[in-house]
Amino acid sequence: MKKPYLFSGVVGVVATALLLAAAPAATGLQKVRQYRQRHEHELLAEYLRLLAIPSVAADSAGLRRTATTIAAMMRQRGLTNVQLLPATTPGVPPAVFGEVRVPKATRTLVFYAHYDGQPVNPAQWAPGLSPFVPVLASGSLATGGQLLPLPGPGTALSPEWRLYARGSSDDKAGVMAILAGYEALVQSGGRPTVNLKFFFEGEEERGSPHLAELLHQHRVLLQSDLWVICDGPVHQSGRKQVVFGARGDVNLGLTVYGPKRPLHSGHYGNWAPNPALALAKLLASMKDSTGRVTVAGFYDDVVPLTAAELAAVRRVPPVEDDLRRELGFAQADGQGQSLVALLNQPSLNINGLRSANVGAQAANVIPTTAEAVLDLRLVLGNDYQRQVAKVVRHIERQGFFVTRAEPTEAERTQHPRLVRIAPETGYNAQRTAMELPVARSVVAAVQATTAQPVVLLPTSGGSLPLYVFKQELGATTLTVPVANYDNNQHAENENIRLGNLWDGLETMAALMTLK
Amino acid sequence: MKKPYLFSGVVGVVATALLLAAAPAATGLQKVRQYRQRHEHELLAEYLRLLAIPSVAADSAGLRRTATTIAAMMRQRGLTNVQLLPATTPGVPPAVFGEVRVPKATRTLVFYAHYDGQPVNPAQWAPGLSPFVPVLASGSLATGGQLLPLPGPGTALSPEWRLYARGSSDDKAGVMAILAGYEALVQSGGRPTVNLKFFFEGEEERGSPHLAELLHQHRVLLQSDLWVICDGPVHQSGRKQVVFGARGDVNLGLTVYGPKRPLHSGHYGNWAPNPALALAKLLASMKDSTGRVTVAGFYDDVVPLTAAELAAVRRVPPVEDDLRRELGFAQADGQGQSLVALLNQPSLNINGLRSANVGAQAANVIPTTAEAVLDLRLVLGNDYQRQVAKVVRHIERQGFFVTRAEPTEAERTQHPRLVRIAPETGYNAQRTAMELPVARSVVAAVQATTAQPVVLLPTSGGSLPLYVFKQELGATTLTVPVANYDNNQHAENENIRLGNLWDGLETMAALMTLK
Repeated sequence: MKKPYLFSGVVGVVATALLLAAAPAATGLQKVRQYRQRHEHELLAEYLRLLAIPSVAADSAGLRRTATTIAAMMRQRGLTNVQLLPATTPGVPPAVFGEVRVPKATRTLVFYAHYDGQPVNPAQWAPGLSPFVPVLASGSLATGGQLLPLPGPGTALSPEWRLYARGSSDDKAGVMAILAGYEALVQSGGRPTVNLKFFFEGEEERGSPHLAELLHQHRVLLQSDLWVICDGPVHQSGRKQVVFGARGDVNLGLTVYGPKRPLHSGHYGNWAPNPALALAKLLASMKDSTGRVTVAGFYDDVVPLTAAELAAVRRVPPVEDDLRRELGFAQADGQGQSLVALLNQPSLNINGLRSANVGAQAANVIPTTAEAVLDLRLVLGNDYQRQVAKVVRHIERQGFFVTRAEPTEAERTQHPRLVRIAPETGYNAQRTAMELPVARSVVAAVQATTAQPVVLLPTSGGSLPLYVFKQELGATTLTVPVANYDNNQHAENENIRLGNLWDGLETMAALMTLK
Repeated sequence: MKKPYLFSGVVGVVATALLLAAAPAATGLQKVRQYRQRHEHELLAEYLRLLAIPSVAADSAGLRRTATTIAAMMRQRGLTNVQLLPATTPGVPPAVFGEVRVPKATRTLVFYAHYDGQPVNPAQWAPGLSPFVPVLASGSLATGGQLLPLPGPGTALSPEWRLYARGSSDDKAGVMAILAGYEALVQSGGRPTVNLKFFFEGEEERGSPHLAELLHQHRVLLQSDLWVICDGPVHQSGRKQVVFGARGDVNLGLTVYGPKRPLHSGHYGNWAPNPALALAKLLASMKDSTGRVTVAGFYDDVVPLTAAELAAVRRVPPVEDDLRRELGFAQADGQGQSLVALLNQPSLNINGLRSANVGAQAANVIPTTAEAVLDLRLVLGNDYQRQVAKVVRHIERQGFFVTRAEPTEAERTQHPRLVRIAPETGYNAQRTAMELPVARSVVAAVQATTAQPVVLLPTSGGSLPLYVFKQELGATTLTVPVANYDNNQHAENENIRLGNLWDGLETMAALMTLK
């Protein structure tokens, strides 16, 4: 796929040099931007190397290699005290730590991102794409973008180009924007105004099961005035965003049992119970036709938004109609409530379904099991274990015997409806008050990098283990995302828009010079 | 897995020869049995070779090779006029034909089986099994059987052994029982009393979409007094069975549409509609909690059983309690009706479900689509297209816009619920009257091979394209199955009990000497 662009490259370099020579004295932001423009090929090449390392929970060696690569990237940039922070539990992917002590600085910011990605099913990726073979495209492949060869040196990189790979947005983009932002700041003559710490987690997509342990163990090293969480997408309108909280999250696997062996649907159909039907009835009972969850007490416990938060929600630009058109569906759930209003409520989503086979492998059978994975999102006030318990109680009320293990012979004989539930580790929501002085400083710093009004969200729809930072360190957190909203994070064909990576770099540099 | 059993083999051969020398004058049945006992190693080896040839719809070369192998097996046995019967439509797997003209015979029987098998997903087969690498086990693997090495010559073969491979029961067992039955009959000095024709189809598991064409094209060659259909299992009690009809069958693929790209379940959960939930609600609406289909008119059109058929149904030995225990479920559908009574009604089964991923590959997404495959079984009086139309009308009544193609942008924008329906080719049920003289002769012939009363079923739960034989040839059909009921046909780990193969061989030989 590589083509030599040498000739046009030379022309490009000369043109850039001429433009720079003619530029007036630049602001800090402009210097950062110019540095990035001069070095975007090197930065892109470095990012491609990082994306090429498999970094999913199933590949612990790949995660380890990702962590050591990031540590090397930190050392190259002159960070001090660079180390892999281990958890007490063996086998946990380490967090990567580094810092910059700034003489006379009175405040300390920790920049957080995570280097692990969602699980991958390469077969589901578009032709020409592979999760850990990053490739460029001229735009979103979903709307007509075409795959591009890697550009030769000097070729101008369009901000509209997309880089496709698992983790390209979620959340190696955070790692890259932070480290490249620091590089651009200091290499263009800038100087941080605050002490900087960097903490890159390796288990976020598994639900951060050892984050509390890690934070607790390294709590002295990790003291700070603010954690800046660089994860998730900017607003769908393209505007930059500061997010004051995040929903909590917990997953729940369901397996409904039918006959012990797959049965011929002719010889037993009408008589042997079908677990796929039982699962369908169970799932159907959980939400009404407007998408409202019918599990008893599901919306209890929710802490209402404050006046300031409600005002921020009202100022969020409406994107629903455009989004619906782009996503190709006629009617949203939620009875006309805005997307942002709905994201401030707990949710229940079916992540996946499976029973026997469909398509070319479908056979005329009564399946032995039917599986679903549920994703519960939580808002301030919800407790993840309590929320799971409500769902379990609902399932029992539908007549199911609930077990946590493979059912025994006796259980099979006794209970007409039988479901195994596998709740995973989860965490609760967290929300930082909009009125905090450091929050106001962060909003001002981000606003200084863009002409468009920054969107302020009380809660991100997506989840982050912010609760744990509060609990273990008493820390304040604010989320400042960089990715484009249409990045396919958590799915096949994940991508980052190059312009978002560069904008993110500027945002991170601005936060390092917080007023 | 092969071990040399040479020494014990020699001993075995000598012992068998001594026993035979001491035997009194044998009946025809006994001679057939003795021939089989003397040649069961050769027969098994031949069957292993047949099972090793992949014979699924997705592998047309494998189907072709299966057909030519069967033709060779026919020629080795001295059948005449052996040929592959092509359909008019190109690319259709041919039927394999052969015959035996018997001087002075006044009746002609056609023996039918099919050589294609259900689709396979090798990953779902038990460790050590592969669909087209046939292996022996000491019994059913589901109840403690262990894999065995292939026996050396002379080792006694236990009738309880199982042979695992796709098609081992459904329905290469039919091909093998028929051809080996003929061989054993004539090699042991017997002589058919009727003209014999053999017709082995290659598309039954696809729903026999070209059977009508094949029968019509070769209708002169295929004239007969009776088609003996050798397919399906014997009764669960282990008794031999004569089945007077079969349910019809039609499959229906459903794809429900959500957002055009997979969405992060955090950033869009509560707002973007989830197709897995919409599919669950749709499927849940199709049956009540007792398993009764709630599609309007679903049980209309059914031709009631005659007095003789009802009496036969009442004489079927009850197996429900044993089966339920074996299959590990607490309660059957059908409100206490017997299995055989329920199989004389139309059915609706979910063959499979799929939306995004479950298990290790599950991700926190709102899926783009959710799929199900439905299997509709039909009884006498139902028409498969009318039955599909009832289901489609039910789906529309649930608020779905139904399309046969990938939805257009306009359809996505207009219809909150959108489903693509892919109905496959199907066929109707057929039932032969129990009072026909040839039916009585067949029952008597089968009864003569066994001490247990033969079970008479008006309708098999499983489907066969018997309707097409009536329509194209005006033919009478009776089904005489050979496989064990717990054969996992249509699923992973398909197997045949060796004793059933040998019993089937005797049944087929008896039918060739019909009185």
